[in-house]
Amino acid sequence: MTQKAFQDYYPDGFSHCYGCGRLNDKGLKIKSYWDGEQSVARFTPENHHIAIPGFVYGGLIASLIDCHCVGTAAAASCRNQGIDIGRQPGLRFVTASLKVDYLAPTPLGTELEVRATVLEVKEKKVVVEAKVMAGTLLCATGHVVAVRLPGNMIL
Amino acid sequence: MTQKAFQDYYPDGFSHCYGCGRLNDKGLKIKSYWDGEQSVARFTPENHHIAIPGFVYGGLIASLIDCHCVGTAAAASCRNQGIDIGRQPGLRFVTASLKVDYLAPTPLGTELEVRATVLEVKEKKVVVEAKVMAGTLLCATGHVVAVRLPGNMIL
Repeated sequence: MTQKAFQDYYPDGFSHCYGCGRLNDKGLKIKSYWDGEQSVARFTPENHHIAIPGFVYGGLIASLIDCHCVGTAAAASCRNQGIDIGRQPGLRFVTASLKVDYLAPTPLGTELEVRATVLEVKEKKVVVEAKVMAGTLLCATGHVVAVRLPGNMIL
Repeated sequence: MTQKAFQDYYPDGFSHCYGCGRLNDKGLKIKSYWDGEQSVARFTPENHHIAIPGFVYGGLIASLIDCHCVGTAAAASCRNQGIDIGRQPGLRFVTASLKVDYLAPTPLGTELEVRATVLEVKEKKVVVEAKVMAGTLLCATGHVVAVRLPGNMIL
């Protein structure tokens, strides 16, 4: 894995995101890293991220998939174009669509691993799929279409 | 609209959900009501529910759609079977799949309306679609497949 997370390279103006902004004190601070050809984020939900007793809230799982895949889209776009991920202004992506399939109730109280695979990289669109694991249990899968923000929206 | 929200009829064991549980002090407390044949939930995101400056975090929008549509699934199933929504044990549903299309950046600082239409009601499966509006701006659409929990999982 890389030392710095993808999100650590976001400029300050992009670092307030509730899901992954390092400057959002109330947020989830999701961090994503390359792990070979895949990317990975690890996150341990808090007790209040509950759905029904013992299980994680589905909206949190959607949030993990969303931020991890959009961060992966930016990193993959940089890698594909040979651009340093730390270059400013960087390549920033937002979510066009998010699909989550909940395959098994996700146990609360354990670290989750979100592992993403890049399916397609175009200049303005990156498609990423993800799996959410609790240990060896596949809890959910995700599919994200991320689209590139115009340069003048990058703060 | 009805006086009580769908979620107000959930038994205590189902009322800790981060999205819509009345007993989760750190949660969003999403409330859903019938409005004729559709259902509606209104929610004003807080400042920390930010994506990039000025806009709402997509994971929050996914959460609004998720809880509103699952609550609508339970209410629609009761209505379809002629069951009082307050009957215990009630009919409880969970999310099997969630799809969100983000059509326009959602402005932060205004009340959002999530309006759902029930597409299909079967005994163990209800399909619901939703629109998220900020005033007259259509920000996102959602599609949720909700499946019924077995009676022995209803606490």
